[in-house]
Amino acid sequence: MEFSLIERIRALTEQPRDDVRLGIGDDAALLSVPVGQDLAVAIDTLVEGVHFPPGTAAADIGWKALAVNLSDLAAMGASPAWALLALTLPQPNQAFVEDFSRGFAELARPHRLALVGGDTTRGPLSISVAVHGFVAPEKALVRTGAKVGDAVLVTGTLGDAAAGLHALGNPFQADDKHSSARDFLVARLNRPTPQLAAGSALRGLAHACIDISDGLVADLGHICTASGVAAEIDTALMPLSPALMALYDDASAQQFALTGGDDYELCFTVPMARLANVQSDLSRIGCGFTRIGRIVEGSGVKVRGANGEWLESGYAGWDHFA
Amino acid sequence: MEFSLIERIRALTEQPRDDVRLGIGDDAALLSVPVGQDLAVAIDTLVEGVHFPPGTAAADIGWKALAVNLSDLAAMGASPAWALLALTLPQPNQAFVEDFSRGFAELARPHRLALVGGDTTRGPLSISVAVHGFVAPEKALVRTGAKVGDAVLVTGTLGDAAAGLHALGNPFQADDKHSSARDFLVARLNRPTPQLAAGSALRGLAHACIDISDGLVADLGHICTASGVAAEIDTALMPLSPALMALYDDASAQQFALTGGDDYELCFTVPMARLANVQSDLSRIGCGFTRIGRIVEGSGVKVRGANGEWLESGYAGWDHFA
Repeated sequence: MEFSLIERIRALTEQPRDDVRLGIGDDAALLSVPVGQDLAVAIDTLVEGVHFPPGTAAADIGWKALAVNLSDLAAMGASPAWALLALTLPQPNQAFVEDFSRGFAELARPHRLALVGGDTTRGPLSISVAVHGFVAPEKALVRTGAKVGDAVLVTGTLGDAAAGLHALGNPFQADDKHSSARDFLVARLNRPTPQLAAGSALRGLAHACIDISDGLVADLGHICTASGVAAEIDTALMPLSPALMALYDDASAQQFALTGGDDYELCFTVPMARLANVQSDLSRIGCGFTRIGRIVEGSGVKVRGANGEWLESGYAGWDHFA
Repeated sequence: MEFSLIERIRALTEQPRDDVRLGIGDDAALLSVPVGQDLAVAIDTLVEGVHFPPGTAAADIGWKALAVNLSDLAAMGASPAWALLALTLPQPNQAFVEDFSRGFAELARPHRLALVGGDTTRGPLSISVAVHGFVAPEKALVRTGAKVGDAVLVTGTLGDAAAGLHALGNPFQADDKHSSARDFLVARLNRPTPQLAAGSALRGLAHACIDISDGLVADLGHICTASGVAAEIDTALMPLSPALMALYDDASAQQFALTGGDDYELCFTVPMARLANVQSDLSRIGCGFTRIGRIVEGSGVKVRGANGEWLESGYAGWDHFA
């Protein structure tokens, strides 16, 4: 049973690469890392009922299980190459596996990412993916490099995924007038786009970078802790999508943007002298971005409200055990 | 919460390595693969109630989650280097995490394996580990190389882990006379030893190799399918431990040896001309081994009974969805 499932996954995710000497089907995969490149590796797990609601489409789960991992590579400025998949299912459901694999492959294919190994087991629905990418030594984007005086920027818009999750639980908003906005937000939740091109463009420019999985304040807080600095950001500068603003009032939208997880945009810091380079390089690849604050001395993340007042802290973001 | 758990895991599993440029604590780990080596990677998941009984000690789970993965590297002839850990727990139980980490580290340390990244999430207890090792190109032990005329050998003894699981469910055998045998079998279940030294010794000698996780007949069957050959093995030649023979009659012991999973010994095929080399090389590292059959033309695994008769097939081994 397991064997035929793995064969289906292999067939649906096939991606030939010269650096895969031996792919799915033996005790381990054998891979060739290019000389002069470091290997960047990350692993992330999605659990039903914790990271996605029961009833989420299998294809969306497949996409997202890969996306959250590719987002980690994006935050390092690494280029993706290979993945391993550990898929735990309550029963051997071939239709689920096929849809899951199609969603996974839809995101993998444009990045030429090869699935090189995996394990299927019986148990409550959960998915762990480990991804591998390449980055030149000393060029990786880390969390520890933020410096006082840096500008703080984010790609894309914030709060959409959290609003999408909220909207899923509140069908009263599903009238015709708002359905396209709602669909946009739910798609941002279910099919996040890892910012790989932006991560690559920021290599050598950004001082520090992280992907926003736990929420802006929490994740920027990780940069501050790792770098020994503080950040000041401004709610008035939050990049909000038209869909988010159509469905929610300002206070809710800002709350989603500050603390909602799952957006998988990049948050990064840049020395002022390089701001023009960042602006031109990100514009060239069509990546939207917004300056939302600056790095200062101290610790933690301070948030300025719409009237210039400092908001109460307590933006804990997404706690994995909440 | 997650952060402090990860900090504890990091502290308890620390293993400095020059090839780890950046370990736990950023979006991805950054690693340096030696020039001239391929990277061998594998992932395996353990789910409570499927791969270990509820109530298994956390330290044993930590050991086993790593052991089953190192066993995959052993079966390729690869040397272990790094691991990623995805740990899913019903609640943030610090005592569990500490004991788990100690068991993991107890096995990792002698192999100088570094835990370089991970993810902790909330959900039903399960553990995925991805391991990374090195092997020279063209030297890896694969499943596809078995040739007609090869001898079939296994390391160690077979059936112990399956008997240990059976004994756990049958406390009637826990009298004083049998308690040390029982303890041995349960330890074989909970603390399997990956045969890394044997895998290394077999590089360049064995034609094909696999680790016995699903059961001898099932796993040797994988070699046969991958190599386009058949195997004949002899129940009278099964290597059985004194503990297994003390607690079970011949028929049960042979059944455990043929179809019981979880032993994590190596099953491999060797051309007759190299048998003496294998014998001397494995003896030199103190690894016990037994010749149990041979590779023939055809397909599938044929098992000869104690009186020379061919046994009914139907040894399906461990089905992950059974």
